[in-house]
Amino acid sequence: MTLIVAVDDLTASDAMRLTTSLCGVARGFKIGLPYILRNGADSASLLRKECPQALWVADLKLADIGYVMKLVASAIINDVDAVIAHGFVGLRGALDELKEYLDENGKKLVVVATMSHPGAREVYDKVFPDIIGLLKRLQPWGVVVPATRPETIAVARSELPGSTILSPGVGAQGARPGTALCRGADYEIVGRLITRAPDPLATARRVVAEQEEMLRKCKGLK
Amino acid sequence: MTLIVAVDDLTASDAMRLTTSLCGVARGFKIGLPYILRNGADSASLLRKECPQALWVADLKLADIGYVMKLVASAIINDVDAVIAHGFVGLRGALDELKEYLDENGKKLVVVATMSHPGAREVYDKVFPDIIGLLKRLQPWGVVVPATRPETIAVARSELPGSTILSPGVGAQGARPGTALCRGADYEIVGRLITRAPDPLATARRVVAEQEEMLRKCKGLK
Repeated sequence: MTLIVAVDDLTASDAMRLTTSLCGVARGFKIGLPYILRNGADSASLLRKECPQALWVADLKLADIGYVMKLVASAIINDVDAVIAHGFVGLRGALDELKEYLDENGKKLVVVATMSHPGAREVYDKVFPDIIGLLKRLQPWGVVVPATRPETIAVARSELPGSTILSPGVGAQGARPGTALCRGADYEIVGRLITRAPDPLATARRVVAEQEEMLRKCKGLK
Repeated sequence: MTLIVAVDDLTASDAMRLTTSLCGVARGFKIGLPYILRNGADSASLLRKECPQALWVADLKLADIGYVMKLVASAIINDVDAVIAHGFVGLRGALDELKEYLDENGKKLVVVATMSHPGAREVYDKVFPDIIGLLKRLQPWGVVVPATRPETIAVARSELPGSTILSPGVGAQGARPGTALCRGADYEIVGRLITRAPDPLATARRVVAEQEEMLRKCKGLK
């Protein structure tokens, strides 16, 4: 399964319905900070009960010193499998401490390598090689590279062979399902395209079918 | 008044006691994401009632696309005066949208220009000139530059004459009270040195006295 569904701007009851319905179709669910702030730190625990076998990712976009990132993560760590932090905070006194803490608690660290919006080109992209370098040393379980940047996914795939690549930006932000997978991503993260669809389950199944079709084509197996 | 007190790892009852006691001594209070996650999005509103005349800053360390930063900010915006975001995410599709949203709601944007931990030198510092450049265009109300980096404060002060500079890192992270003020900061943010003191009010008063003493010396007015 190659689909992760992002739950950002849903109410708790809509999110509950959605995750129950998509359990088994989506490999996992990404819960954003907006959702957690609006519904409380234990809201992830309630959702997770609807589909305990899925991969639950807290998209906290942590970007602070290690001490603070650990404090934030501790508020939700028991209810998720993985936590997302930013690569730009660097290793020493930041990501190294967070990874150690997550390792100790049997949780996965996922690190943003770059982003997809136009502003990412103003700053983030200029240090992309530095971030790839620190990710090689850190060896986090996962890395976030946007589906809208296929050439960047290919670089991350070749530089970080041991990492799981998660690619947001499919759907509302413009990338077609399967594009990121074809360049080496392991999962595509889809939000509004599915969560705002009249029939989210049917849409999720269509996205998965498109991913498979695209993968067959790009791998030359059609 | 030049002191802002950081409330990160306190319980709600301790934070309430602290802010009541320091009201009038501290110019404002910075509430971190750990506090908000543990105590709920409305916890800022409860604290604020203890000292409504203070400057209340939500240290969300926002670092996402504009759409998501606005969603997160909306959960707390009515209970604070200012919100902290990272300069790293750039302007277009990120800080420009957040600033517009905060302006519309009569709230202040504070942007992190760099950080104080060793990892900041690995990545953040390499793009410091780019971040100063985008801050000149964005013109946020406030900018965060660590007190442990006095030379960087001086650069920010001279490049961003219209911005209020807030400097964390005084106390537990090593900078002495007044150091940042002497280089051009407007406020020093102090956390554990005060919040973990046996007598926070006496410690806060001592910090303010040290700031004044240091300012007299560095301005040659002793």
